[in-house]
Amino acid sequence: MKAYVAGVGMTRFEKPETREWQYWDMAREAGGTALADAGISYADVEQVPVGYCFQPSTAGQRAVYELGLTGVPVYNVNNNCATGATALMLARRLVEGGCDCVLALGFEKMRKGALGAGADGGDFATSPVARHYGIMAARHGFEATPPTAQLFGGAAREHMDRYGTTEAQLAAVAAKNHRHSVHNPYAQFRDAYDVDEILAARTVHRPLTKLQCSPTSDGAAAAVVVSERFAEERGLSGLTEIVAQAMATDTPESFASGSCIDVVGQPMSREAARQVYERAGLGIDDVDVVELHDCFSVNELLTYEALGMCPAGESGALVESGATTYGGRWVVNPSGGLISKGHPLGATGLAQAAELVWQLRGEAGRRQVPGARVGLAHNIGLGGAAVVTLLRAA
Amino acid sequence: MKAYVAGVGMTRFEKPETREWQYWDMAREAGGTALADAGISYADVEQVPVGYCFQPSTAGQRAVYELGLTGVPVYNVNNNCATGATALMLARRLVEGGCDCVLALGFEKMRKGALGAGADGGDFATSPVARHYGIMAARHGFEATPPTAQLFGGAAREHMDRYGTTEAQLAAVAAKNHRHSVHNPYAQFRDAYDVDEILAARTVHRPLTKLQCSPTSDGAAAAVVVSERFAEERGLSGLTEIVAQAMATDTPESFASGSCIDVVGQPMSREAARQVYERAGLGIDDVDVVELHDCFSVNELLTYEALGMCPAGESGALVESGATTYGGRWVVNPSGGLISKGHPLGATGLAQAAELVWQLRGEAGRRQVPGARVGLAHNIGLGGAAVVTLLRAA
Repeated sequence: MKAYVAGVGMTRFEKPETREWQYWDMAREAGGTALADAGISYADVEQVPVGYCFQPSTAGQRAVYELGLTGVPVYNVNNNCATGATALMLARRLVEGGCDCVLALGFEKMRKGALGAGADGGDFATSPVARHYGIMAARHGFEATPPTAQLFGGAAREHMDRYGTTEAQLAAVAAKNHRHSVHNPYAQFRDAYDVDEILAARTVHRPLTKLQCSPTSDGAAAAVVVSERFAEERGLSGLTEIVAQAMATDTPESFASGSCIDVVGQPMSREAARQVYERAGLGIDDVDVVELHDCFSVNELLTYEALGMCPAGESGALVESGATTYGGRWVVNPSGGLISKGHPLGATGLAQAAELVWQLRGEAGRRQVPGARVGLAHNIGLGGAAVVTLLRAA
Repeated sequence: MKAYVAGVGMTRFEKPETREWQYWDMAREAGGTALADAGISYADVEQVPVGYCFQPSTAGQRAVYELGLTGVPVYNVNNNCATGATALMLARRLVEGGCDCVLALGFEKMRKGALGAGADGGDFATSPVARHYGIMAARHGFEATPPTAQLFGGAAREHMDRYGTTEAQLAAVAAKNHRHSVHNPYAQFRDAYDVDEILAARTVHRPLTKLQCSPTSDGAAAAVVVSERFAEERGLSGLTEIVAQAMATDTPESFASGSCIDVVGQPMSREAARQVYERAGLGIDDVDVVELHDCFSVNELLTYEALGMCPAGESGALVESGATTYGGRWVVNPSGGLISKGHPLGATGLAQAAELVWQLRGEAGRRQVPGARVGLAHNIGLGGAAVVTLLRAA
């Protein structure tokens, strides 16, 4: 049973404490917009997977009750930074298993500095991220900056040492994504910066400067996933097919290699992409537009390699060549990516899906990728999970 | 595609800080036992839904990595006290959607007093339980005892006022379940108490005494759910069919009626049971053994009515009649129930499934229900969700 995205919605992503809202306010806005976009009502929804990390248990119910009290099943899911794509994956699974109409919803009301702690801000000592961090800290003697920045900073230095990647190439990722964000009304930051400005910004963890790191954000995003039968019955238009999707979690090399590049999940991303290409019978050459998980600039480079956009070590040259922006082979992160759009954990994966749906429908306005037919979303979380999703205009 | 439980496992439930263990130790024990019980290895597992409320995001990965690093998808789910059954439901859904072998795992490492706070111990003010509690507190002027005890205590007083239910009838539930627990090596408490002793125990919230309230517990439970095809290929034995399953969430009456009985979820339980009976073509008269969510004694009475074991108001008489213990029409909570067995949120629903699987296989030792063929599990969480599962010996 094929699954289609029939509607998407999201809030603008905001710096925490900018707006007076609770997570259920965000959910109402994003969920209501997605339902209206699909042209259906909440009464049509049969199941609701909800993604978030920082809110209490059953926050999904509290959130969807804003849309209606129909008594349908709610599954609250978390997977750190890959939570949004996990909710989307569950929605697809439910439709493939026989459901007609599922709402995937993701939100996060965050605290400043939350991204640096254990993903739920709580018991870092026993968190999965602490385990990854502990292994690397013992080897590399990390400093008193947020663990995630240390792990990704370590991966960046490793990439520089191993392949000769430069700080300017890392900054080029951020320059591209900030430039894209100028045209995205949903982005937390919409200012363009050149490579020199990005290099001159405060260092968070060497070599990563503040303008190369995703900010802490509030926000929500949602997608309505439907069966072919339901779409036909209701005469729904603007459909996007979920062609293939895969989640990979850690394998022995995540822990055993001693490489920060492995620990932050490049092998998970590679494996998820491999599975998706195999299932779809498509490859990266068939893809026009990519939304990928640039939580830090270095992760965009690592992901180019994991998705097969270039051989290992050549990602720095790839971004500098212009191949991943308008006019190039692909447009990567037309939304501005996590770096400028923001990164509310539960929402990010669904916001990527929303951007791709708009791109594949030709509704992305001044950030439209001309002629986009196939899109790829990549969402990853330490701890960990990488989810890759291939979407195609139906 | 039919789904079968091929193996189950659980740890003994323990008072927090009794054993030196982390959540991943519990998970290894319960998950490893379930795999061995099914006669398969972790390498056969294709997907892993994991239920918990109090541990950090992606704790499911940290836990299942103890069983193996195979890179398979992990979904971390929460639904307050119904979290374990939610993980089981997701496992069944995945098998019905085409998977062959799914491990459902649930665990909780709790803090003392955790059950009284928001389910994750965190931000109670914005938790869904606070919303239910706020409505009732405004109407009834609650006191400084745990919110859940106040809501269920309120429901007990309402039942007494409306139907003439007595404190002795409430205590009879606890007396029955404590008596059953004597033969359950997995139970946190294994002492029998008579009605007078239960009534004489410290009052937690009028009319509920300490011996009528489930304790705070650590523990884990797991179930291997497989497709018919996989079971045949591997020649698996001791299968239990998941005949039907349903989750209901809150409807308008949960908030609007002003009744504590409605707020604690009797309507959700009734609706989930109705759906299950309809899908299975079976009724409560076909059921031999029940594991239901006696978080407080009153909830067992409310659930008798919700499941159709008696008309509304007659549940007090039903327990006193002996109809729900050995020699009666059904045996309810042969495991000792949450009251004596303990209640680690993520594990409870899966521990109920484990008990029923043992009962339906005839492996329950001194607590065996003679000739048990059909079992019903009922797991409910404020916030909220009620999950009802019908199991049958295959």
